[in-house]
This record gives sequence, C-alpha cells and structure tokens, in this order.
Amino acid sequence: MNTFGRNFAVTTFGESHGPAVGAVIDGCPAQLALSTADIQPLLDRRRPGASPLASVRNETDSVEILSGVFEGMTTGAPIALLVRNQDMHSGDYEAIKEKFRPGHADFTYQEKYGIRDYRGGGRSSGRETVGRVAAGAVALKYLSSFGIAISGQIVSVHGKTTMLEIEQEILAAKNTGDSVGGIVKIVATGCPVGLGDPVFGKLDAAIAGAMMGIGSVKGVEIGDGFVVAGRFGSENNDQMTKTGFASNHAGGILGGISSGQNIVVCIAVKPTPSIAKTQTTRDIRGNVVEINVSGRHDPCIVPRILPVAEAMLALVLVDAVLEQKKYR
Amino acid sequence: MNTFGRNFAVTTFGESHGPAVGAVIDGCPAQLALSTADIQPLLDRRRPGASPLASVRNETDSVEILSGVFEGMTTGAPIALLVRNQDMHSGDYEAIKEKFRPGHADFTYQEKYGIRDYRGGGRSSGRETVGRVAAGAVALKYLSSFGIAISGQIVSVHGKTTMLEIEQEILAAKNTGDSVGGIVKIVATGCPVGLGDPVFGKLDAAIAGAMMGIGSVKGVEIGDGFVVAGRFGSENNDQMTKTGFASNHAGGILGGISSGQNIVVCIAVKPTPSIAKTQTTRDIRGNVVEINVSGRHDPCIVPRILPVAEAMLALVLVDAVLEQKKYR
Amino acid sequence: MNTFGRNFAVTTFGESHGPAVGAVIDGCPAQLALSTADIQPLLDRRRPGASPLASVRNETDSVEILSGVFEGMTTGAPIALLVRNQDMHSGDYEAIKEKFRPGHADFTYQEKYGIRDYRGGGRSSGRETVGRVAAGAVALKYLSSFGIAISGQIVSVHGKTTMLEIEQEILAAKNTGDSVGGIVKIVATGCPVGLGDPVFGKLDAAIAGAMMGIGSVKGVEIGDGFVVAGRFGSENNDQMTKTGFASNHAGGILGGISSGQNIVVCIAVKPTPSIAKTQTTRDIRGNVVEINVSGRHDPCIVPRILPVAEAMLALVLVDAVLEQKKYR
Amino acid sequence: MNTFGRNFAVTTFGESHGPAVGAVIDGCPAQLALSTADIQPLLDRRRPGASPLASVRNETDSVEILSGVFEGMTTGAPIALLVRNQDMHSGDYEAIKEKFRPGHADFTYQEKYGIRDYRGGGRSSGRETVGRVAAGAVALKYLSSFGIAISGQIVSVHGKTTMLEIEQEILAAKNTGDSVGGIVKIVATGCPVGLGDPVFGKLDAAIAGAMMGIGSVKGVEIGDGFVVAGRFGSENNDQMTKTGFASNHAGGILGGISSGQNIVVCIAVKPTPSIAKTQTTRDIRGNVVEINVSGRHDPCIVPRILPVAEAMLALVLVDAVLEQKKYR
Repeated sequence: MNTFGRNFAVTTFGESHGPAVGAVIDGCPAQLALSTADIQPLLDRRRPGASPLASVRNETDSVEILSGVFEGMTTGAPIALLVRNQDMHSGDYEAIKEKFRPGHADFTYQEKYGIRDYRGGGRSSGRETVGRVAAGAVALKYLSSFGIAISGQIVSVHGKTTMLEIEQEILAAKNTGDSVGGIVKIVATGCPVGLGDPVFGKLDAAIAGAMMGIGSVKGVEIGDGFVVAGRFGSENNDQMTKTGFASNHAGGILGGISSGQNIVVCIAVKPTPSIAKTQTTRDIRGNVVEINVSGRHDPCIVPRILPVAEAMLALVLVDAVLEQKKYR
Repeated sequence: MNTFGRNFAVTTFGESHGPAVGAVIDGCPAQLALSTADIQPLLDRRRPGASPLASVRNETDSVEILSGVFEGMTTGAPIALLVRNQDMHSGDYEAIKEKFRPGHADFTYQEKYGIRDYRGGGRSSGRETVGRVAAGAVALKYLSSFGIAISGQIVSVHGKTTMLEIEQEILAAKNTGDSVGGIVKIVATGCPVGLGDPVFGKLDAAIAGAMMGIGSVKGVEIGDGFVVAGRFGSENNDQMTKTGFASNHAGGILGGISSGQNIVVCIAVKPTPSIAKTQTTRDIRGNVVEINVSGRHDPCIVPRILPVAEAMLALVLVDAVLEQKKYR
Repeated sequence: MNTFGRNFAVTTFGESHGPAVGAVIDGCPAQLALSTADIQPLLDRRRPGASPLASVRNETDSVEILSGVFEGMTTGAPIALLVRNQDMHSGDYEAIKEKFRPGHADFTYQEKYGIRDYRGGGRSSGRETVGRVAAGAVALKYLSSFGIAISGQIVSVHGKTTMLEIEQEILAAKNTGDSVGGIVKIVATGCPVGLGDPVFGKLDAAIAGAMMGIGSVKGVEIGDGFVVAGRFGSENNDQMTKTGFASNHAGGILGGISSGQNIVVCIAVKPTPSIAKTQTTRDIRGNVVEINVSGRHDPCIVPRILPVAEAMLALVLVDAVLEQKKYR
Repeated sequence: MNTFGRNFAVTTFGESHGPAVGAVIDGCPAQLALSTADIQPLLDRRRPGASPLASVRNETDSVEILSGVFEGMTTGAPIALLVRNQDMHSGDYEAIKEKFRPGHADFTYQEKYGIRDYRGGGRSSGRETVGRVAAGAVALKYLSSFGIAISGQIVSVHGKTTMLEIEQEILAAKNTGDSVGGIVKIVATGCPVGLGDPVFGKLDAAIAGAMMGIGSVKGVEIGDGFVVAGRFGSENNDQMTKTGFASNHAGGILGGISSGQNIVVCIAVKPTPSIAKTQTTRDIRGNVVEINVSGRHDPCIVPRILPVAEAMLALVLVDAVLEQKKYR
C-alpha cells in the first residue's frame, strides 16, 4: 500500500519528523544515465522555505542514491533514494498531540492504527511526497528518452486566475490565519498511441487513482471532464483527420488507451486544512475542544502540488510504457 | 489488467458479440449464503431492452454460478459467473468494420493490438460490465452483513435535473440521432472508520480509479469535489462534534481513510459516442471517411451506468473491508 | 490466490463435482493463432479414464473458448476456457462426507473455511488442474514461437525405473488397495539467456513455487538438486566454453536467471493419499474413526502429473518471457 | 521483483560494494514494540568476519530504523531499515571485472542488463540478504506474539554430519582453495491450522519459492521430501488421532494449508562458486580464459545461510498469518 506501479514500482517511506524520507524504485531499466543532478532540481521545486507563500520549514532535501547506479548508469537493481529530515520542530506539535485537526488524517489514522505519530502529521504529511518527486524525477528522465514530457500549471486559486491575483489571494488568506484551494492542470506531450490496458488497467483510471491519491486532491478530470456531462455526442466526439484528431475533448485517452494526443488532467486541490483560525474538534478522549493549528503550514498547497502531480503522472506513464513493451 | 481488487479479486472476461461474458471472483469469504437470486436483479437493472431510453438489444442476461458455492453457501473457492450472449446482430457492424468510430476505442485498440474484434466494440463494449455488476452483487451481499449499503442517483442529464426533463432530453437526442451525457452520484452508507490505506492505497484513490475505469466517465469527485478549489480552509474543514462531524465536505474520507461518514462520489458521464449523425473519421487504411453509426445504441448511458458505478464502489469497499481485517 | 503469473495471469476455477472447471488467461499477447485444437490434445493427456493405471472417471474434457479469440486469433482480451464436468458420482462421497481422509486437504479446508465441498475433494481435487493444463497449452503455443519447448518424463515410480516395472508396480499397488509415488523430470529447451529477475523474481524460485503448488508434490530440484550438497565447488561449477558451458549441473539457471542451457527440474510426487486400505482418522465431530476411501482414484498420480508439471513450467516461462520484453 | 510478500511486503535494496543495503517493510501491523535490539542479533548471526569458517570481510552491520516506528512502537507506516556498507575492498575485483566467474550470476546479469556492477557480485551478492534478515527479524517478532517460532540447523556439510567433522571439512576445503555444500533443515513450531491458500497461494508453494530464491539453494523439500517417492500411500499418510496426527511425513502442510503440526523444510545448498582453484571461463569479449577467484569468500555458505532461511520462512509465515486474518 506504500508501493505505486507494477513495472516501475516505487515504494516510499518516512514520516514528517522521523529521521528520513525516501523511496525505492524497483524496475527501472538498466543503462539509464542517472545521478543526483537529475533528481535534485525537482526536489528543490517542491521544497518548503523557498517562497513567502509557502511553509518556512527549512529543508535542503539533499538526495542520496544508495543503490542501483554503477558508474553513473542504472544497473536494473533497485534504486534507493534517501533524504534526511533536518529542520524538525516537533515541539510545535505538543499542543495538538491529543487533538484531531479538522480536515486532517489525525482522526482516521488514530482510529485505524490505535497509534499515531502526531509530529507534523507523521506519515500523512505532505513530506511523504519527497519520495514521490524523487522517484518521479527518475521516471521523467526515462520518459524523456521516448520524447515524453510533462508539465503542470496553476489554473486558479480560490477563483483567481492571474499569478498576481493568486499571490495576493494566498497572502491575504495567510494573514487572516486561513488557507485557500485551487485547480491545477497537468499535460503530457509526446505520448505514443497504445498506452494503458483494458479493462481495469485503463490509463485514465490509473491517472485518476494516482492524482486522487495525492493529499488534498478532491476531484480529477481527464480532458474536458465535467463539462462533457452537458454536451451532445456530436459536440463531444473528437473527429479524426488524416494525421490525428480535429479536437481533444477526450484528453488524449480513448477506451482507456492513449490516442497519441496530449494527455490532459485537471485536479481540484482543497484549501490546506491546517489553519490558525479557531476551530471545533474532538480530542483522543472524546471531548469536544477548540483548536488553533500553529506550526509552519502552507496557506495554499497548490504551487507545491505541481511537482508532485507531475511526478505522479510520470509514474503512471512510465509504468504504462514498460507494460506496453511486453506486447511488442 | 482484467482483474480488479487485491483481496476480493474480480477478473472479467468476454466480448460484446462473443459466446459469453462473465467474471471470476477470487477471495470471497466462505460461508456467505449466495444464489443467482442475489445477482440476477442487479443484472436486470443494467440490462438493455428494458426501456425506450435504452438500446433495444434484447438480452435476458441469465447468470449461472459455475463454482465456489456448495449447498447455497460460498466455500472460499473462486466463484465463476457466466452469462451467455444471445441477441447478437453482428451483421450490423459490417459497415463499420474498417472505420474508427469517433469517441470510441476502435482506433486505440487497433493500434495497440494490431487486431480488433469490431463486432459491437468487442472487449471495449459496455457489455463487459455484466461481469462487473454480477461480481458487484456478490460484494454488496457481503457488505450488507456489515451494514454497508450503496445507492446511486442521476444528478443531471445534459443539464436537466428532473426525471421528466431528463427523459424528454434523452428522447429528443435519440430522435435527432444524437446522444447526451450527465452526472451521477453514488453514496455508500454504513462504512466504518478506518477503510483505506496510506499512501498509495487510499480509499479515495481506489474509488477514483474504479470510477474513471468505467467506460464514458471523464471526471470523478469525492465529497464536494471541484467546489473546494474556491473555498477557504475555514469553510471547507469538517469540524468535529461529540459523535461525529458537523458537515461532510470531505465526502467521508480523510487522509485516504474512511471517517465513518457517508462516502459520496460524483462522476461525469460523456454522451454516448455512437451516434447516427454523420461524422468524419479515418479508416484502417488511413483514408478520411464519413461515418454514420447504426446499431442499437443507448442515446444516453447515464441510467444504465448507475448499477455499474454502484458495483464498482462495492468492489472497492469490499476490498478495503477485507484488507482492514488483516490489521485487527 | 487462484491466479498464477503476473504477465500471463491465469485464474482457475471449479470443483471436482461442480458444474464446470476452467481458466481465464489475462495477458496473452494478441495475434496468436489459437483454437481448441491447440488445447484439447493436452487435456486428453491428463484426462482420466484413458488407462487401466488411472481413475476410471470418464470425462471427455471438451474445452470451449468463451472469449479473447476472434477469427482464429487472440485479440489481447482475456481468454476464458471452459470444461463442463460430466461423469460425477457424488454419491460415492456420502460415506466420507464427515471423515477427514488422511493425507488429504479435508481437515485443513474444513478448519480454514468452516465449510467444505466434500464431493471428490471439491476445489482441492486434481480436477482443478484441467484449468492449468488448458492455460498451459496456450502458453506452450506462444513459447513455441520463440523456439522454447517443454517435455516431461517419469524418472521412477516406487523406486522402479523401467516402464514395464513401473506399470507392474502401479497395478500391484492398485490390487492391494494401496498407492505409490514417484519422481518426474521436466526439461525446457530453447530458453534464451536472461529470463528471471533478481532477487525475489528468480526463475528457479518461480519454478519451485509452481511445482510445489501442484497437489502431491513434496520436493523440487533444479539441475542436480540435492546431490550438490555433497560436492566440492570445483566439481559443481559449470565451466564456460567458447559457445556455452562444459556441463549443466546448475540446470540452466545462474543467479536466478536463465543461462541459455536446458532448464532441468525434478519433482517428488507422493503416493496418492486416497487408498482402499483401512486407515485411522478423525471425523468432523472429533471422534477417532476408521476409513476406507472408495471412489475412482488413481493408484499412482505420477503419469497424470506430467502434463500438469509441463503446463506449470510453461506458465512460469511465458511469464518470464513477457517480463523480459519490458527491458528490451 | 525485489519485493517479497503481499501483506507484509519486504523490498530489499543495495549492492555488495555500494553505499548501503537495506529493506523497506510495508504492511507490518501497528502497535508492535520494535527497536534495533530486535534486529541486530539476527544480523550479527549472518555477519561475516565472525568465524574462521567464514569470509573475513569485516562488517558491523549496524542497522538504523529510518521510519515506521514512533516511541518504540510500529505505527503501520513502512519500516525502512538501513545498513551502511563499510569494509569494501572493491579493488579485489579488478582482476575479474571482465571475466564471468563460473557458477555465479556474472554471465547472466551481463546478458540480461548489458551492464553489471562487478564489485563483489553487486546485487547478486549474498550481502543482499542483510535486508532479508533484518526484515525477517521484524517478522519473527510479530510471529512470536502468536506463539510461532522458527529455528534452523545444519543437517550435513559435504556428507558430514557432526559439528566437528563439518568444521574440519570446511577448513580442509578452504585450505585447498575449494568449497563445499550441504543441507539445512528449518522448522517452524506453533503454527495454527489454516495458513496458506489454494490453489496458487499454497503455503508449501510459497515456502519452496522463498527457499529456492536464496542464492545457492538448488533443492527444497517439505516434510519427508524426495523419500515419499519410494513409499506406499499406506506408509506415507499421516493418520489422525484424537488431538492431532500419528506422524508428520507431510511436514505440517496438507493441500497447501498448515495442519497445525510443525512445518519442516529441507534445502540443498551448493558449494560456494567462488573458489581459488583455477577454472576455465569466458570473458566479456567472448574469449575462453582461466580464472582464479580471489577475494574474501566463504568456503562454505551453509552456516551463514541458516539465519537467511529462517528469515525467509518467517516472511512466508507472517504473510500467511496476515492473509488468514482477512477471513476470520
């Protein structure tokens, strides 16, 4: 349940305030040139402490490759990637160790496991995504050799759509001890026809699962998404041309299999649940209590979710590319 | 890739115009009372030929239990469920055997496999969902013993929201040789706290994958879905009360784990791609050609997708219930 | 747990005295010419009723292909294979429905599931191997296109090594209401170098699991097997030559990966546990009772295990061949 | 392919001469008391440098727990275990970097991946088993709470059966630049009835796969193993008594499911392929060459394989225990 993918299988580990976070990649093909220089830039993009809009937790997030690379090339052996945690203020969490933060996994983890690492959310922290992004960087490197590229962009934050408005909106929320959500779009270009497998291995199903599995995501659309519910078939079908399609309402996937067009995904990101405003909740003894979540939280997770969503799409695609090679 | 679930693993088989469709369930607990009477009613709900709004293909869809049940009880052995196809008019498809129907999987299957059963869409046909619904019926029976129930409803079709308007809209589309899409909501009640597994086995991720893997689905929302992108955290967090939560914006899932509230899922269904109106497409030799899709197609798949979506949610939940038992 | 293989995934179903047995193959590549004529001869080899040395149960074991084949070619869709049971004498088992046959799975199934299809062993019957052999036939067809072939032979039965002695030994055991075991060798020729994956996907590990998973098998050897325990390294290492190896003590596998030599496997088969001689056992109420197992049992399963063991080796190899294609 | 187990899933990583080796355990139940003190003693047992009979490579093999444990208790999150490599003499391998050592995986890895970490065997080194033993220690801790214990013993080395003879035999082989093999028996006590799943998830099949997947193992027996091939059924069946069985020829498994008796496994271990004696082999350019394998090798791997085989049996059993809980 901490492993993603069946061919390029990524197992992540680590808690927000434990010694380290990381990932093990099993199934990366041999003979791929790989060094930390391929991974570090993507970790830097998701890193906190880099912007006034983000958490001030200060992590260098330096990645170490523990295995699977020999003389600068992958060998086919598992690639273990390690990032030590450094700037942990676990003391920040003493005040809430017995309270369930609304909108967080505190309550469900406690109920499920009967124990919970309350420091910074433990395993449910966004810090877990360090492993995803590191592994995604390796996937992106491999995909680039097939001409596949992935890029994400912010569509809107709290209804605002220009970068200036968005920054102001985030800072305004921060200043009132609140948070805001938004929408992100991820596009993959260069995908060949044929990725994905009927009927339970559909590419769009895999993408939807991958995206909804990112913390804070509450909705996923492929192509035109919910808009198609209001269309006629004659409007929505992408008619074919001599070399491709006349439109891409489908978002690059037909019958669960890539069509060769751009793969287009949108995700809805909820406002960060950790807010300074006073909320009502329960404690582990069942009492209703008030809570103010201090700590170093992002007032909006949307900008930092971009590299994570890109990484997840990369992991889905690399898995599909390898799967498809079996049948060639 | 034709198997869904890791504990209650369902493998479906069969093509639209082949001899039969069906499913094998591996992992159904022993000592569950089971007969075809538990399955047939759900198959009847998804059956074509039952309404002027649906395809006139006339299938009785009688299910046979081939294994795994002894003296009316499951034994723990695989349960094979078989439905023979009967009312096949394969001749209908001669006209389009060499043309790719826009919005269909024809093109991607042909490119992926180099061969394609063009009769009624073959494996990509909605007829494949017979196996899902049959297996889902067994899942629902098992879930009911835990007090878990699932029901779906149509939210809208082509923007209309009352049943009368919806029926008129579907008939109007049918009469013009067109089709319409819509939105469906599925709700599970009675779920215990604790279903789902971090970080890649999240319940919402599994649901999203299951729903997006249904043909024609282009969007999935958990709880309030895309609306959360426009909210403040202080609005969106579900505050806790003495016995539960003050609201359910989250749709019953926190950190990927069920919270004990109702699980709420919405899906966007595209208009049926098979339409009688003239469209432009390509044939298998690369020529641009016109196409009119005759055959017996649903002008709107929304009503018939309901039992399929319920079945898929049942399969996700039964898998999570069994998974959770490991850690008790 | 009723599915074997991760690429060419075979799910078997069915009980000895239920309506049918069969298998669903998921992952067979498209464009393989396939008909029942490719499968029936192997089913005929494992069929009972064909020899005075075997059970007199009379089954035609006619296989029907329900899906996945179109105009004589596989399409990439799941291939469902069905064999109806015909000659069931379930009445034979009334006498033992409440007694655990020594050496059988009766006791463990009853304890595990709390219910048990006692007719002919239900799911634990050798009849389940119909599905394995049918699927194995498809695997063999695919492997043959790579030049890979598999054949098995009887090494010994109850210590006898010539066919004449073996037949006499089996008949003698039958006449005294007893049974005998033996040893079988399976060899695969034509395997390329490189099949199998370190460290838990080793080819020899997969073969050992596949073989030990056949009912009645109690030992598995690769290459020289237990003999190597008494050797010096200088005797046991297969030294390399210009084009291959000077010997094949390793049985064609080095470090879990095929070396290009013949793959050689031996298995130990226990004497059939169903014997007419009086034995002591327990009944489902906990009483110690005597038991004589009547019914139509093989006095020696060794001859009929050959096609099953060949099928299992084929399933391991086809899976490895497909896996290996991912990294080419 | 570097992950073992479906419920208690262990992914190992690391090469003999890379920065580190280790494992990630996914699926360990929460609330198990765990510290490095539970793991270190088992690592010390398999550690080199501890005996004149073993390699003189000097590793402290100190394990660090990177995640999944909070305040001395498992949390249900993945447990990452890390052991840094220290005493690497990679220079030892310069002489053989272009030669395939007979009996080793050098040739097959080179052919499979087109690249190979030749230092100490890289990923194919026995050093990989550090991860298995560390994970196995956690499994053993969990199993002990169910009263299940595992212990191994040397049956014979090169035909010798007393410890004194065995030590002399190993030293004699070492002094002549040669190596010897042997036989090991592993027994699990305290197993409940019901572990293992028909038909491809049989407990004996899983054990056979686990054991054959240990480097150097060429044969696996359950219970009486190959001896049963020479028996009558009336000799081999374990008759039942009021409280159990009159014998244990079956080795504690009937129909693939544990019977409640001791589980008994024997494995054949080949002589270490790395020997100082001159052998003939090929180099990576296809030339036939002579080779003398220097380096710090065990003249007999049998003593050090014991904790590895125990660990693998523990991993099989913990997986089966968790699987079985699903159906209770």
